[in-house]
Amino acid sequence: MSEIGIGIIGGGYMGKAHAVALLAVGAVFNTALRPRLEMVCATSADKAEHYRKAYGFARGTADWQVLVSDPKVEAIVIASPQATHRAIAEAAFALGKPVFCEKPMGASLEDSRAMVAAAEVSRCVNMVGFNYIRTPASQYARQLIASGAIGDVTWFRGEHTEDFLADPQSPASWRTTGMANGTMGDLAPHMINAALALLGPIRSVIAEVETVHRQRPGGPVSNDDHAQMMCRFDSGVMGQMYFSRISTGRKMGYAYEVTGTSGAIRFDQEDQNALWLYRAEGPEASRGFTKILTGPTHPDYLSFCQGPGHGTGYQDQIIIEAKDFLEAIHAGKAAWPTFQDGMMVNQIVAAALSSSTTKTWQDVAAF
Amino acid sequence: MSEIGIGIIGGGYMGKAHAVALLAVGAVFNTALRPRLEMVCATSADKAEHYRKAYGFARGTADWQVLVSDPKVEAIVIASPQATHRAIAEAAFALGKPVFCEKPMGASLEDSRAMVAAAEVSRCVNMVGFNYIRTPASQYARQLIASGAIGDVTWFRGEHTEDFLADPQSPASWRTTGMANGTMGDLAPHMINAALALLGPIRSVIAEVETVHRQRPGGPVSNDDHAQMMCRFDSGVMGQMYFSRISTGRKMGYAYEVTGTSGAIRFDQEDQNALWLYRAEGPEASRGFTKILTGPTHPDYLSFCQGPGHGTGYQDQIIIEAKDFLEAIHAGKAAWPTFQDGMMVNQIVAAALSSSTTKTWQDVAAF
Amino acid sequence: MSEIGIGIIGGGYMGKAHAVALLAVGAVFNTALRPRLEMVCATSADKAEHYRKAYGFARGTADWQVLVSDPKVEAIVIASPQATHRAIAEAAFALGKPVFCEKPMGASLEDSRAMVAAAEVSRCVNMVGFNYIRTPASQYARQLIASGAIGDVTWFRGEHTEDFLADPQSPASWRTTGMANGTMGDLAPHMINAALALLGPIRSVIAEVETVHRQRPGGPVSNDDHAQMMCRFDSGVMGQMYFSRISTGRKMGYAYEVTGTSGAIRFDQEDQNALWLYRAEGPEASRGFTKILTGPTHPDYLSFCQGPGHGTGYQDQIIIEAKDFLEAIHAGKAAWPTFQDGMMVNQIVAAALSSSTTKTWQDVAAF
Amino acid sequence: MSEIGIGIIGGGYMGKAHAVALLAVGAVFNTALRPRLEMVCATSADKAEHYRKAYGFARGTADWQVLVSDPKVEAIVIASPQATHRAIAEAAFALGKPVFCEKPMGASLEDSRAMVAAAEVSRCVNMVGFNYIRTPASQYARQLIASGAIGDVTWFRGEHTEDFLADPQSPASWRTTGMANGTMGDLAPHMINAALALLGPIRSVIAEVETVHRQRPGGPVSNDDHAQMMCRFDSGVMGQMYFSRISTGRKMGYAYEVTGTSGAIRFDQEDQNALWLYRAEGPEASRGFTKILTGPTHPDYLSFCQGPGHGTGYQDQIIIEAKDFLEAIHAGKAAWPTFQDGMMVNQIVAAALSSSTTKTWQDVAAF
Ligand SMILES: NC(=O)C1=CN([C@@H]2O[C@H](COP(=O)(O)OP(=O)(O)OC[C@H]3O[C@@H](n4cnc5c(N)ncnc54)[C@H](O)[C@@H]3O)[C@@H](O)[C@H]2O)C=CC1
Ligand SMILES: NC(=O)C1=CN([C@@H]2O[C@H](COP(=O)(O)OP(=O)(O)OC[C@H]3O[C@@H](n4cnc5c(N)ncnc54)[C@H](O)[C@@H]3O)[C@@H](O)[C@H]2O)C=CC1
Ligand SMILES: NC(=O)C1=CN([C@@H]2O[C@H](COP(=O)(O)OP(=O)(O)OC[C@H]3O[C@@H](n4cnc5c(N)ncnc54)[C@H](O)[C@@H]3O)[C@@H](O)[C@H]2O)C=CC1
Ligand SMILES: NC(=O)C1=CN([C@@H]2O[C@H](COP(=O)(O)OP(=O)(O)OC[C@H]3O[C@@H](n4cnc5c(N)ncnc54)[C@H](O)[C@@H]3O)[C@@H](O)[C@H]2O)C=CC1
Repeated sequence: MSEIGIGIIGGGYMGKAHAVALLAVGAVFNTALRPRLEMVCATSADKAEHYRKAYGFARGTADWQVLVSDPKVEAIVIASPQATHRAIAEAAFALGKPVFCEKPMGASLEDSRAMVAAAEVSRCVNMVGFNYIRTPASQYARQLIASGAIGDVTWFRGEHTEDFLADPQSPASWRTTGMANGTMGDLAPHMINAALALLGPIRSVIAEVETVHRQRPGGPVSNDDHAQMMCRFDSGVMGQMYFSRISTGRKMGYAYEVTGTSGAIRFDQEDQNALWLYRAEGPEASRGFTKILTGPTHPDYLSFCQGPGHGTGYQDQIIIEAKDFLEAIHAGKAAWPTFQDGMMVNQIVAAALSSSTTKTWQDVAAF
Repeated sequence: MSEIGIGIIGGGYMGKAHAVALLAVGAVFNTALRPRLEMVCATSADKAEHYRKAYGFARGTADWQVLVSDPKVEAIVIASPQATHRAIAEAAFALGKPVFCEKPMGASLEDSRAMVAAAEVSRCVNMVGFNYIRTPASQYARQLIASGAIGDVTWFRGEHTEDFLADPQSPASWRTTGMANGTMGDLAPHMINAALALLGPIRSVIAEVETVHRQRPGGPVSNDDHAQMMCRFDSGVMGQMYFSRISTGRKMGYAYEVTGTSGAIRFDQEDQNALWLYRAEGPEASRGFTKILTGPTHPDYLSFCQGPGHGTGYQDQIIIEAKDFLEAIHAGKAAWPTFQDGMMVNQIVAAALSSSTTKTWQDVAAF
Repeated sequence: MSEIGIGIIGGGYMGKAHAVALLAVGAVFNTALRPRLEMVCATSADKAEHYRKAYGFARGTADWQVLVSDPKVEAIVIASPQATHRAIAEAAFALGKPVFCEKPMGASLEDSRAMVAAAEVSRCVNMVGFNYIRTPASQYARQLIASGAIGDVTWFRGEHTEDFLADPQSPASWRTTGMANGTMGDLAPHMINAALALLGPIRSVIAEVETVHRQRPGGPVSNDDHAQMMCRFDSGVMGQMYFSRISTGRKMGYAYEVTGTSGAIRFDQEDQNALWLYRAEGPEASRGFTKILTGPTHPDYLSFCQGPGHGTGYQDQIIIEAKDFLEAIHAGKAAWPTFQDGMMVNQIVAAALSSSTTKTWQDVAAF
Repeated sequence: MSEIGIGIIGGGYMGKAHAVALLAVGAVFNTALRPRLEMVCATSADKAEHYRKAYGFARGTADWQVLVSDPKVEAIVIASPQATHRAIAEAAFALGKPVFCEKPMGASLEDSRAMVAAAEVSRCVNMVGFNYIRTPASQYARQLIASGAIGDVTWFRGEHTEDFLADPQSPASWRTTGMANGTMGDLAPHMINAALALLGPIRSVIAEVETVHRQRPGGPVSNDDHAQMMCRFDSGVMGQMYFSRISTGRKMGYAYEVTGTSGAIRFDQEDQNALWLYRAEGPEASRGFTKILTGPTHPDYLSFCQGPGHGTGYQDQIIIEAKDFLEAIHAGKAAWPTFQDGMMVNQIVAAALSSSTTKTWQDVAAF
């Protein structure tokens, strides 16, 4: 059992989640490599000190360059806003340090391309934070599809819908400015990543990206509220997606349906411990969608709990990510999804945005 | 209380459903006008006689012209295949007889245009058989949206999905030949009608219409298995639809979601007695989708049962249609959806088919 | 195909339901014996005439003896209050006429005993109106259990819960007077009948029967609001039941769970077209409760609709009852549940009431 | 921010869960008191060393007396089998150390009485591990009921059902021996505690406790497989409970329904992030059970995640327990549920076991 010093940039929503995950992951998964919370970085020294104490880091700093270059910081977790991702990652790779970067990868496709390039040159472990695909249920869904349990896939539907900006009176903020903070920039990547994980590469898309509430108390809105998309996978399968931050009533609407020639799968993150599976087998009279509760026989569940149906939650997804990141570093192997995978998501986002302007189908390869 | 002689063309799936509905409707709704089962028509005299006895008609015939022109047949229900709809309707209108026509209206947009023209000239009651929109739940959904219960609508998703041809080994048949019998011709009209009923006219569409299984035991397939579509309503709202007869696991997947600025509605015909309503009001902590069970306070429910949650079924939808048809005749007023409404559905189908070929957005008005 | 003249006593809630059922049943099930709506009886001539016209009976009367003894009335449906059941049934049997009696069988155990005796002497068809057990889903549940699909049964839970008197301000009425109109008298019989149908005879019970709201606007309440019970079946299996008319939020809470050594079944009448089945077979990872939608492969479904998942409703249950009653008469054979079955239900009700007074387990056989 | 050294007895299922919780709790809740994993105890030195390394304790021991008396161990978590609870707790209290004890409190009512006495003498913080009642959803349910949101409570139903011994071929083991490991000893306490938490004290019970599979591969079974119970609360409300380890299909069936005069609550731990609430208010047409997803407005949720519907899991319940235990120690105040609360649960278990023998209602106060 060896130790590795970790530095996290950001101590907010995700910075905290990663700190907690790193504290717990060793005991949960009995990892060979054990993380040491070495340094946390925030926008001010006060904040950094607050996070340091709250999460139990050894040191804090207001300068991410200090963190990245500190010799006791041996691996980096980027949990700061999209605009900061690229520079931090490039600096870390330049020093040969593994990087875990929160989604989306950078503020633009250009950013993510540069990050992939830097990662490749460095040959360091690089991983993107698509946590939802790591629930035991969604991992099992991937296995089922890959094993042919639903036959040949014929259709896909995915959505990532929330309602935190559904109220037109919700004020303007940083969230309502900048494409990287809009629905396509911020929410869509999770579900696009899921689509790729479940069905493979996407060849072409057509999309409508829209700002429904163009004015909010406090000022104008410069990014998108929701977007709908149709796509064609490399496999020839077609599908639909929808992304929204104004989907009144939806709290964590990361949901998908995958239909095959001999079965189908349905999942909704709002009930993340259940996967619905239909199999066209046995007598017609007893067929139907089976509500499978996750349990010890599903991927990464047993380490959290020996009892089936006892359930994992949001924080546990981040613990699973931490485990995979540590194991990748320990083994010196890539951990899915890599920066390359994250960049492919941004490519599709770019194609969709372009499509919404031209109103035509766009080849993803052109982006 | 007066009586009216009814003739039904077709004694199969829907011919039977309409016969049962006409037998029951008077007692259920205490209608002023009472139907008399005067004549039934089928493709042979034997079949006609079989239906006559089984359903209790006075007479049977193998020639629909005999039925239409019989003086004791005062109103017509068309429950024969799409290819027959137009000629029958035109003949009936020519004789000044009200017509109820099963969906879709004719075998093509051209057919439905001709049927609308004939209906207008005759000034007779004309009505199309979109039964699903007549459940108490979907009628209530329409009321809720119209009354502003969910605020301004921002998004729509609809599907009509079944799996009767999901098995690639299901043999070729009349269902797998002819556009009017494909998914766009046969299933899509129900959900397109729902979209229009819930949100109003559709301005433009882009669609992918596809035959997944091009060969089946018994021969090639000449119509579509499934289709996906994006649309823009006249109101400016955008939405997505999906139609499929190969949606493994879905039996009666007539389902929709309507999102508004202050609420949302979800419905799935597979649980037709429940409507899910979210209202953005009251304390955040107690918000969520409410599962409303239909009951005596919802449209057309009380006549079936005094108890809430006791439930109505498929046959009851046809009884509601029969009531509305009889009341329209009695009042001498049009009954929604008229042939004009049915034609608008076919217009959208035509635009979608064209879009799937050109791969571009199509204005519905151009069809 | 022959005809039979039917007389119905009562034209209210259930009188109407049976009238509609008799109008529809021949066409739905293509029955060999076809009902003719001969006469309807109500408490006044006006009401009788109103029902006659509304439902399409040939004649009406305010005197049930006239109806029962009319020669053209060849079979009787009793849809009047419990206090009238016994005298009517006895008179009908004395004249050799088949009787369908709404649940519960009479106003007391004594009544039902007398009714069974009269039925046996007459050797006429006799049947009790436990309609809920006749849904395709519950019929299928019976088949599954009988076929061993869930192994040896180990536990049962049943409830019949509604909330029509949940509001303490709901006024006193005939419903709040007389044991036969209380929860044990009026609602419990449905679920007790289900328990017997699914698991066989009940040997002993212990119950708490309670009036929660003893005063209501308009006067005191003399019967029970809810009751809980534990029981032991003849098979040795134990179970729990609950009955309530003050179960706030429950509209048609006729729900049961049956657990076996290798599977389990769950059903809730509020979603009457779904049966949930768990089978302890196949890999653990893919086990779960399967939501089976009723369809043409389930009992009595196909006659209503060719499409699975299209659903049947409350009125359809009464049509199934009518079919079974007619077929029993036609075949000259008993139709489950007979008066004997109805009496056994009342025996359990009596044992439960006694148990609630003595606070001890009671043998059903002692009643 | 101060620190406290913790010793855990047991490193199995719950020992691990508590170790993880203690590692994470400080960062999650920013607790004033921070736990230090001082020592872990298991049945052998090897095992203790294994747990030490895996979970990150400073030291390990095979002798719980060593752990309890170690000066750097300032508070004790008992996560060893029921038979060990009493002696450990007594020793810890004798040294003035706070104790968190896993449920159930000891192996018998006598044990729990002694433990309460020892706790009272010591005046140390004492707390029992009923984790399920600590989900945000169940905490919110308690608040709703206490605030009168559902009016006066009229009925309760609770179950704790799992199926880990449903298969009759599951071998005999320590789980199938000893009353404290049977269903009443091991599972029932969770739901009895919930009943007390939601509705207050229970006055009397009648129960049937049963061993369905008396022989299993490997030997005879000496404890109970399932049990059903009826009860009367001090408030006068009546209710039903069921406990089972042979409930085929149920994985984490900790479920309850609470009915009141103006509302109702339903909860099922298998979907632990949803609470169903019915309110008898507003127009009848829009009433129904609302599926509330837990979020930042519910108790103890926000510390895990800022997003509603993102969900907490089993491990998070243990983290909440750890927070409450630490805060109680820090504040020098009792934390519900105390040993006294745990003992009251065992009192009800004893009354139920006695009732099952005598077949009569039993006053809880007599135990
Ligand atoms: N995987 C998931 O479920 C989620 C991912 N995210 C992603 O996580 C990242 C962070 O988002 P949140 O935690 O929500 O933001 P946040 O606003 O809660 O926290 C951002 C943190 O970054 C720090 N920060 C900002 N600029 C910095 C700079 N220049 N140098 C150093 N520190 C800086 C701030 O002090 C703050 O601690 C984003 O990329 C976002 O897209 C966010 C929420 C959920
Ligand atoms: N609203 C709904 O839910 C449904 C509507 N439909 C529609 O109902 C219509 C009939 O479909 P089904 O009942 O399923 O078909 P079916 O094949 O079960 O019955 C068709 C009937 O039409 C008769 N028929 C065929 N050609 C005829 C002719 N030239 N002259 C006289 N009679 C003729 C046949 O003898 C047969 O009785 C179609 O337009 C279909 O799209 C069908 C199923 C469901
Ligand atoms: N199976 C089921 O789901 C239900 C069964 N029932 C049962 O049906 C029976 C009737 O109940 P409802 O229809 O709800 O009552 P209701 O009050 O709606 O109708 C009762 C009818 O009986 C007639 N009637 C009363 N006394 C009479 C007399 N002495 N002679 C002739 N006619 C008389 C009345 O005029 C009225 O038409 C009861 O036994 C009840 O328990 C009631 C509701 C549901
Ligand atoms: N709250 C909950 O959800 C659950 C609570 N429990 C409770 O937790 C307790 C432990 O159960 P599990 O963790 O399932 O058992 P387990 O068998 O997984 O672990 C028991 C641990 O106790 C240790 N141990 C046994 N005897 C000991 C002794 N004399 N001295 C020191 N260490 C000893 C063993 O080495 C082992 O590490 C029990 O009281 C049980 O009822 C168990 C499972 C779930």
